[in-house]
Amino acid sequence: MSAEHFEVRYRLQGDDPVAMARTIAVEQTIEFPQDLVTDAFVRDQVIARVVGLEAIQPDVSVATLRYRSHVVGRDLPQLLNVLFGNTSLLPGVRVEGLELSDAMLAGFRGPRFGVVGLRSLAAAPSRPLLCTAVKPMGLPVPDLAELVYRYAMGGMDWIKDDHGLADQPFGRFEDRVVACCAAVRRANRDSDGRCRYAPNISGPADRIVQRARFAKEHGAGGLLVAPGLMGFDTMRAIADDDGIALPILMHPALLGGFLTSPNSGIAHHLLLGVFARLAGADATIFPHSGGRFSFTPQQCGSIGAAAREPLGNLVPILPSPAGGMSLDRVGELRAFYGEDVLFLIGGDLHRHGDITATCRRFRALVTQPV
Amino acid sequence: MSAEHFEVRYRLQGDDPVAMARTIAVEQTIEFPQDLVTDAFVRDQVIARVVGLEAIQPDVSVATLRYRSHVVGRDLPQLLNVLFGNTSLLPGVRVEGLELSDAMLAGFRGPRFGVVGLRSLAAAPSRPLLCTAVKPMGLPVPDLAELVYRYAMGGMDWIKDDHGLADQPFGRFEDRVVACCAAVRRANRDSDGRCRYAPNISGPADRIVQRARFAKEHGAGGLLVAPGLMGFDTMRAIADDDGIALPILMHPALLGGFLTSPNSGIAHHLLLGVFARLAGADATIFPHSGGRFSFTPQQCGSIGAAAREPLGNLVPILPSPAGGMSLDRVGELRAFYGEDVLFLIGGDLHRHGDITATCRRFRALVTQPV
Repeated sequence: MSAEHFEVRYRLQGDDPVAMARTIAVEQTIEFPQDLVTDAFVRDQVIARVVGLEAIQPDVSVATLRYRSHVVGRDLPQLLNVLFGNTSLLPGVRVEGLELSDAMLAGFRGPRFGVVGLRSLAAAPSRPLLCTAVKPMGLPVPDLAELVYRYAMGGMDWIKDDHGLADQPFGRFEDRVVACCAAVRRANRDSDGRCRYAPNISGPADRIVQRARFAKEHGAGGLLVAPGLMGFDTMRAIADDDGIALPILMHPALLGGFLTSPNSGIAHHLLLGVFARLAGADATIFPHSGGRFSFTPQQCGSIGAAAREPLGNLVPILPSPAGGMSLDRVGELRAFYGEDVLFLIGGDLHRHGDITATCRRFRALVTQPV
Repeated sequence: MSAEHFEVRYRLQGDDPVAMARTIAVEQTIEFPQDLVTDAFVRDQVIARVVGLEAIQPDVSVATLRYRSHVVGRDLPQLLNVLFGNTSLLPGVRVEGLELSDAMLAGFRGPRFGVVGLRSLAAAPSRPLLCTAVKPMGLPVPDLAELVYRYAMGGMDWIKDDHGLADQPFGRFEDRVVACCAAVRRANRDSDGRCRYAPNISGPADRIVQRARFAKEHGAGGLLVAPGLMGFDTMRAIADDDGIALPILMHPALLGGFLTSPNSGIAHHLLLGVFARLAGADATIFPHSGGRFSFTPQQCGSIGAAAREPLGNLVPILPSPAGGMSLDRVGELRAFYGEDVLFLIGGDLHRHGDITATCRRFRALVTQPV
């Protein structure tokens, strides 16, 4: 890829893929009748070009469009916009591939910690990392904090808020953060542990930086952010903020709009892998196949690959399969994802009696040899 | 609707709608195995209840879920999250209806101007308002400004940036805003007009308030915001900012992920009507049927209704049908939407020779009696 271009692959469903591809090339750039363009720069340097078109099934083709990187600059919302802004409104178009130039990738700081950083914080150089969730919504804050203490005593590396824990009358954000941070501190002291708590900071856009700073000041070890609720670039801004500088666990809430239809939306590995990294997530949480949701093994594998494969100067991050996982699947998950992974098990840890003992079993499952 | 509740209608595709509805009730609140819940408050006051279930086709049902409003508080991201966060990742679920209590609606300031405010700014008490777009991306800023002048001289009420005009090396945000504001000012002076220019401020999350203020300081008459790129609550925060206090035109870029599948996503009238108003938009731009996109007349009508019908204390806003509209459709559009509408025609205004004369024709089409 030349420094001046990037390429996007679109899956097109329809009987005239040539026309569809040309429509996208115009719609995503000049959004103007091409026959009325008189300016040479607009014609030659702005409109995207269709550089590949391949039929893969009857009525399904893959078109490759080459864009000039100057239509984006170094702006993540504008990258999303050029990729799929208006075209998201066309039926039968799915973004399947994205190849950015190294020059464009260099415009993103990306994950601050990534695999290496998260391993270092956990003092776990090689095994899978462990995460669980503070839940259910509605428990009094002292009960949630007590749960956090028990999880941490059991050897969890990470404890994150359920993404439904926001700032409710029955559970104020500030109260929860203070109590859960204190509980983790106490457990780390009592167990000589390194557990980290990541509160959910998704909430009012004009208070999210304040929430992140509050969490940092009170000892949070990371942050849970849902870019589907807050915007990918809001997460990027939090990640880039040197005054915050905490690991970010990304939650996929509301991103399903792009993921559930095979004929439209954005490919799983792009949204939950590539864009997670461009926007600074250090781990990307998603529902693993066979849980409460519907991702296929192939989709999950593609997210795992996109999280960890080379991407310019952006460090690899941990895929975090979740969404109804259980202890009895850890062996299978470990075989599927390998060791660079953050296993997230929530409700199932409550099914086996004493929670701290259950967490220890969870930990034993990832410390024993494969 | 009691003050303590709100209701959501989900369209469910599948052969066990009872199980699907119960799954959603748990997933969208406690996200925890229901059989393990011991806390009475969580059980009785947090988990949503399925209060209606009706089969409408073979394998398609509509379930009504009643949520406690305290699970949301007054937080727009959390409302989206409770409505559809994790459930967006389940195939076959579409959000079709939302009934908020007046108490919840009172938590949103909503549109600052709306129909009445926009009419007042344009000194147009009854006719449809007119909008066009600065385009194509890539024209030098002085050429864009000259175009703005010609549009304004032709009697446009609004001129908005194309949503692809961001902050590119060939067209810097600040340069464009300064030049286009000056062009509109000059045209308003020369023609005794009241045209307003709305620059596109979607861009880096940590600079969007700064961009809005820059635009305001340099005389912009409004702002174009794409909540699909920036997050609905980012738009809400801009709308609520008394230091900005400009009309907001909402652009639907990237929201198509929720709109193109009949079996998943969020209903058009909710996303582009109700959420537009909750998040403070004064006009909502969307592709009208029969243009370059694929909304049906029924979907467009539902957006028009949701923009203008009573919604607690939130003022009505203008639907802005767009996406390939042309002068020869104005009569039809006027019959379809009535007079409380902001017509947006872009490229077609360039098809008929002199642009100012064409804009005058556009204006004549909405000032003559129906």
